[in-house]
Amino acid sequence: MTGRLIVVGTGPGNPDQTTPQALAAIAASNVFFGYGPYLDRLTLREDQRRVASDNREELARAKDALHTAASGENVCVVSGGDPGVFAMAAAVCEAIEAGPPAWRALDLQIVPGVTAMFAVAARSGAPLGHDFCAMSLSDNLKPWTIIEARLRAVASAGFVIALYNPISKARPWQLGTAFAILREVLPWSTPVIFGRAAGRPDESITVMTLAEADPARADMATCVIIGSPETRIIERDSLPPLVYSPRSMGEKP
Amino acid sequence: MTGRLIVVGTGPGNPDQTTPQALAAIAASNVFFGYGPYLDRLTLREDQRRVASDNREELARAKDALHTAASGENVCVVSGGDPGVFAMAAAVCEAIEAGPPAWRALDLQIVPGVTAMFAVAARSGAPLGHDFCAMSLSDNLKPWTIIEARLRAVASAGFVIALYNPISKARPWQLGTAFAILREVLPWSTPVIFGRAAGRPDESITVMTLAEADPARADMATCVIIGSPETRIIERDSLPPLVYSPRSMGEKP
Repeated sequence: MTGRLIVVGTGPGNPDQTTPQALAAIAASNVFFGYGPYLDRLTLREDQRRVASDNREELARAKDALHTAASGENVCVVSGGDPGVFAMAAAVCEAIEAGPPAWRALDLQIVPGVTAMFAVAARSGAPLGHDFCAMSLSDNLKPWTIIEARLRAVASAGFVIALYNPISKARPWQLGTAFAILREVLPWSTPVIFGRAAGRPDESITVMTLAEADPARADMATCVIIGSPETRIIERDSLPPLVYSPRSMGEKP
Repeated sequence: MTGRLIVVGTGPGNPDQTTPQALAAIAASNVFFGYGPYLDRLTLREDQRRVASDNREELARAKDALHTAASGENVCVVSGGDPGVFAMAAAVCEAIEAGPPAWRALDLQIVPGVTAMFAVAARSGAPLGHDFCAMSLSDNLKPWTIIEARLRAVASAGFVIALYNPISKARPWQLGTAFAILREVLPWSTPVIFGRAAGRPDESITVMTLAEADPARADMATCVIIGSPETRIIERDSLPPLVYSPRSMGEKP
């Protein structure tokens, strides 16, 4: 008896940004594994069981989900945003590689979603309108020296940078240090966006310059977007500014 | 009289991956601007008008759409994927910055979507599971020397690379040159994914190594994902391999 495992991205939190494919995958599953707050967003039937776990237990959660699928259940692993971006799809693959051969034979499906940086970008203009990168600022999973080198490399090369996991109680200084490094490489006038809960009732989008960028504006649920030297701000009367990165280099419109 | 302009991302092409928010924006609009094949995906009412244009006329299209919105219409500018990723949101912002002050006062909304690289990643495993970047390989809008420098910078720094606009009739050699540059920097065993029409009936996902990577596998609609030195391939009996980038560095599962 072999079940199925679907890794679903529910999008950035606004229910109107969850795809029909994700909703269908949820409706077709019996057991749900995920970080509690992500599971709380689902409306489940009485016959659907949830197994919540902490947000630093991804690998253990992936193994539990694979065990359960291998026992014949239709399992859903729930991520916010897109499951392939700093989320559960990679943890499930890691567990499969290290696990029993039966796990490789499982019916594994991954359902993409709208990731946080796109929701923040949509509410700010088009800051990711040209070459960009997404980095996790967490040094739980890679050495801080690597993070510093990557920040310098992409900022110097002209990429817009979207930072995931920018700050937490256990990682209080990293975002400030990242801004200090970027001030060595980028113009201090470079736009920085702090985006939280984009598209949700409690949305907060703040635009400041790299000179002003204040790590205290961010929390665990914030996506921080740092422009390239090409990124521009359009001021608007009685509307928030638009931040965008032109599609072409070196030309002004 | 002032209308409204919504820039919508319809996702990678599978209707089940279009968000309810995008569908609602389409239902609430009267005039649609976009590249013909993207407009063809929409089911429009008789009272809804479409204005198709070529895929290299983004700025002219953006200006037409803004003119029409300023005249009082409810306008929808249609992108595939996410409108903020190498698509219409940046073109609209460019046109607003260079245009009349009235355009800054328009009700501008941007609706995010699932971009091609996430659809391809979902069908391959989790290749974007750690730090990654998205680059356009088109040298119509930036000098080729910049593209070469960016490829070297991000590959050397350990980012997975998603290439948009990898090849076209007018740009036949760039992808081959990009692979040659990456072979100077990355292990030749690095996984490369050619993803086309991911999630659609005509889907084609091919995994090869950087040593084997053949530009002829790509066309205009292909998203090419090049792994980092950490990216791994899990072989599976009678199933396609899984490609993933571990969440942590330097550890094997």
